[in-house]
Amino acid sequence: MEKQTEKGGRAIHNNMAMDDACCAQVEKYVIGLDYGTLSARAVIVGVNDGEVVSESVYAYPHGVLRTVPGTEEELPSDYALQEIDDYVEAMYETIRGAVEQSGCKAEDIIGIGIDATSSTFLPLTESGKPLCKTERFKRNPHAQLKLWKHHGAQAEAERITELANRRKENFMMRCGGRVNAEWMLPKLLEIAGKAPDLYEATDNFIEVSDYLVYLLTGEVTRCMCHAGYKLLWNEEDGYPSEDFMWALHPPLVSLKEKLKGRQVQVGECAGKLTQESADRLGLKAGTAVAASLIDAHVAVPSAGIDGPDKALMILGTSCCMMLCSQKLSYVQGISGCVRNAVLPGLYAYEAGQSAVGDLFDWFVSNCVPGAYEKEAQRLGVSIHTLLSGKASRLAPGQSGLIALDWWNGNRSCLADAKLTGMILGLTLGTKPEEIYRALLEATAFGMRAIFEEFAKGGIVAEELYACGGIVHKNPFMMQLYADILGKTILTSSTEQGSAFGAAVYASVAAGVEAGGYASVNEAARSMGKTGEKKYEPVPGNVEAYHRLYKEYKLLHDYFGTGGNEVMHRMKE
Amino acid sequence: MEKQTEKGGRAIHNNMAMDDACCAQVEKYVIGLDYGTLSARAVIVGVNDGEVVSESVYAYPHGVLRTVPGTEEELPSDYALQEIDDYVEAMYETIRGAVEQSGCKAEDIIGIGIDATSSTFLPLTESGKPLCKTERFKRNPHAQLKLWKHHGAQAEAERITELANRRKENFMMRCGGRVNAEWMLPKLLEIAGKAPDLYEATDNFIEVSDYLVYLLTGEVTRCMCHAGYKLLWNEEDGYPSEDFMWALHPPLVSLKEKLKGRQVQVGECAGKLTQESADRLGLKAGTAVAASLIDAHVAVPSAGIDGPDKALMILGTSCCMMLCSQKLSYVQGISGCVRNAVLPGLYAYEAGQSAVGDLFDWFVSNCVPGAYEKEAQRLGVSIHTLLSGKASRLAPGQSGLIALDWWNGNRSCLADAKLTGMILGLTLGTKPEEIYRALLEATAFGMRAIFEEFAKGGIVAEELYACGGIVHKNPFMMQLYADILGKTILTSSTEQGSAFGAAVYASVAAGVEAGGYASVNEAARSMGKTGEKKYEPVPGNVEAYHRLYKEYKLLHDYFGTGGNEVMHRMKE
Repeated sequence: MEKQTEKGGRAIHNNMAMDDACCAQVEKYVIGLDYGTLSARAVIVGVNDGEVVSESVYAYPHGVLRTVPGTEEELPSDYALQEIDDYVEAMYETIRGAVEQSGCKAEDIIGIGIDATSSTFLPLTESGKPLCKTERFKRNPHAQLKLWKHHGAQAEAERITELANRRKENFMMRCGGRVNAEWMLPKLLEIAGKAPDLYEATDNFIEVSDYLVYLLTGEVTRCMCHAGYKLLWNEEDGYPSEDFMWALHPPLVSLKEKLKGRQVQVGECAGKLTQESADRLGLKAGTAVAASLIDAHVAVPSAGIDGPDKALMILGTSCCMMLCSQKLSYVQGISGCVRNAVLPGLYAYEAGQSAVGDLFDWFVSNCVPGAYEKEAQRLGVSIHTLLSGKASRLAPGQSGLIALDWWNGNRSCLADAKLTGMILGLTLGTKPEEIYRALLEATAFGMRAIFEEFAKGGIVAEELYACGGIVHKNPFMMQLYADILGKTILTSSTEQGSAFGAAVYASVAAGVEAGGYASVNEAARSMGKTGEKKYEPVPGNVEAYHRLYKEYKLLHDYFGTGGNEVMHRMKE
Repeated sequence: MEKQTEKGGRAIHNNMAMDDACCAQVEKYVIGLDYGTLSARAVIVGVNDGEVVSESVYAYPHGVLRTVPGTEEELPSDYALQEIDDYVEAMYETIRGAVEQSGCKAEDIIGIGIDATSSTFLPLTESGKPLCKTERFKRNPHAQLKLWKHHGAQAEAERITELANRRKENFMMRCGGRVNAEWMLPKLLEIAGKAPDLYEATDNFIEVSDYLVYLLTGEVTRCMCHAGYKLLWNEEDGYPSEDFMWALHPPLVSLKEKLKGRQVQVGECAGKLTQESADRLGLKAGTAVAASLIDAHVAVPSAGIDGPDKALMILGTSCCMMLCSQKLSYVQGISGCVRNAVLPGLYAYEAGQSAVGDLFDWFVSNCVPGAYEKEAQRLGVSIHTLLSGKASRLAPGQSGLIALDWWNGNRSCLADAKLTGMILGLTLGTKPEEIYRALLEATAFGMRAIFEEFAKGGIVAEELYACGGIVHKNPFMMQLYADILGKTILTSSTEQGSAFGAAVYASVAAGVEAGGYASVNEAARSMGKTGEKKYEPVPGNVEAYHRLYKEYKLLHDYFGTGGNEVMHRMKE
């Protein structure tokens, strides 16, 4: 998930606690550190009450690289590379800052959890040094930190999908039938193909969050949640077979040897803080460091979710939906399904939508007339608030508009990046707020289509939760979601998102003896933040939207499943 | 067609001629008077060279009535009634004004032609007095001048269509299979049903243009071009049979008796100016007054079109396409086909699109961001010009967008007012100018669909002409039309549109002896204004658009012919 960023490279620290509450009891604390696309955020959280006592944010000075490091050579537009030093610096800066601000004693801080976007990884030498820091490879783009949204491996992803489907590979049932270019395997295939010498020279391809854990603990671990979602690994079968790898690209047969590290699961302790790191951070050596985490996934316990069949929608620029279940089922077009990756013993399904907040922002930037901009300015509100206000005075279906929300393709369940957006029902009387509402509705219809796909596989979201900035900023949208999904929506009240979630896992890694928890479920119940605000579906609206959803689904299937391939053809 | 209006009730007169050219020779002149929706315009034109020497414009002081005259009672929103006095006043004001400005001698002005929107009509008493001016009916909305765009007879139009199709009435082949609520017959059925006493009391239902001819000449005539397009009349079979009328609504059996007046054809002389009118206008008694005309139709000879298989696209807020042919064919969804209605001996087919300029204006008013408004202001150009400029730098299909141009329904060939607009191919990178271009393209694709429907009936537009304000304002759009229609587009250079065309017919009504012409064809050749500016299709673009048109047609047929009735359902 992409996050809002603060300019800079300088960490911003905040003491969040009330003066009289701060560290007055024998409360223990944990640190959560979250790496977004453009900045990192550390929080310190009370283990008993889940209160955030301080936070610190650090924007990566180099952002996303535009040129090959040390050269003027522009990178292809679909490349997304970063500077590993930014990540390392962010870790020391934010943790030290948050610790100082919190006023907590080092001995009361019992654990550290780190999550990051995924698959965001880098190649290391045998001595654990990034290859991008070696003289030989420092100018090779493929030696750099490859960000989740690097799209240079699109063709490779398609090849893997095609081959795996042709061979009827078992692992395809857990990834919705399609391999995404943002995953690790296509990116490794890209490296092996485009930079074979680098591939050859690499001792270990490591997720950046595992690398940071290694820097803190000196231990090379590999959290299998990444491997499950991004490397087609699963507990039963392991990685894709050598036979498959051979068919794909012979040098990949040796891939497993380049995926080093003790295999760990989320909630486990990956290692203890070394003396050197402890000194640098103002913490005690021996403090537990949790197995690394995936940013979106840690939001689940943050929201207080402690068991199966509770769906969490993480609504931001895009939407990630997490749903844990006791069942392993095939669900068309999901982003993955990995056991133990979020809550112990449960299959954690991930699905998502490629454009949510991004879509509304596109509309505001490109389609809202000057008069509306002025009106918003006069009222002292954002254009989103103005449009939501006007749109909220319409009845469902009143505008006659219906849209397909595929402005950035469809991630689930069609898993087709080449699909595009559509609006239908336009007349000479159509107003901007009507289109805005139709776009909000379209994303909710898209979400409903995902839940219906899960239901086909026998997995039903009994409870719905929502988190993310947009949830608090746009109550009108949340009401639409409740009406369209036909269920109460509970909200998560934490505003520190994934950093908070990483802290929850840190409390489990620390263990009961140190003052933490025995399980993620228990930690979620104690620390998780289900907000007081909830949205109840309005029966009349539910019924109206039930009819409109049928129209959405008809168009969805027509344009998305081969009735008319015009979107593909137009995109070419 | 709706026209731009000047505020007021005061006529604005202009002397258009060069001082040294004005009336220096023995040139003869004709007057053309055009009634638009909100204003009327008179021009004086030289018979030999077709030069406009003066013009005068008059905006109707009462515009379109909002209340029943003399009351505070609001009219239904689909009603469109006007004040007949505005039309009468406009005639005297503009003709007198244009004559004075021209400096022409009364004896050199040999004819007057009047065109108006159609069907725009009023009921008269036996003595030729409008019933809306009688004590008994002055407050009855149905006694007022009913404007073409009065939509109160929608249900009646549907009943007529249904009954006629069920009975397989011959006349349906000439009107594209569907009766429009804007025509006279459904409006008469509306009056007979909603105001039977008024229907009973009416001696003559008369088109307003015929009524104005009557005021000038004292002769009651009925130009059969109106009857052909708006009353399902044709030369062979006359009006719909009494049998049909009985089945429709028994009182209509006597309708023919209420359609009085000597039947005349376009180009004929309807009568001579009375002494009283001549005095009032500053003209000579006995001056020829032409049979009344329909506004869009008179544009054909204006553009210099003198024979069959030359299509004229009149591009304004909407688009009217006229195509004369020697053949009588069934063409799905046309607005009508009447022999002798435009050029003698030829079948004149009318078809159209409900939103062209209106659609682009909608976009500019509702979807263009403030930054673009500021940029246009800074450059001192209109937003249309700004968008056209940006859009012109794109290649066909580059944006990946395709639209259906049905923002105001589809007039031809689907003839379905309940269809709505659609845009497909939207992405987070889509820019306003890309949407703008897609909308321009969509109207051209719509036009192509009409020509293809004609071609199915064996009627091929060998030459294409375009007229209307937008033709001169937006050369980029005209180039798109040439590329999409795959043919050279000739333009009409007259800027007085229909008023000029009415003058052409006046020269024929005046006849050779008086200094006019023997036929409309001859007048068209001499007076008509084919502009120097023409648009040649660019072969590469033609090919690209040929592919895109296939996509348009696929969507057109899917949404327009029953593949998915979502537009109808959403509109309800």
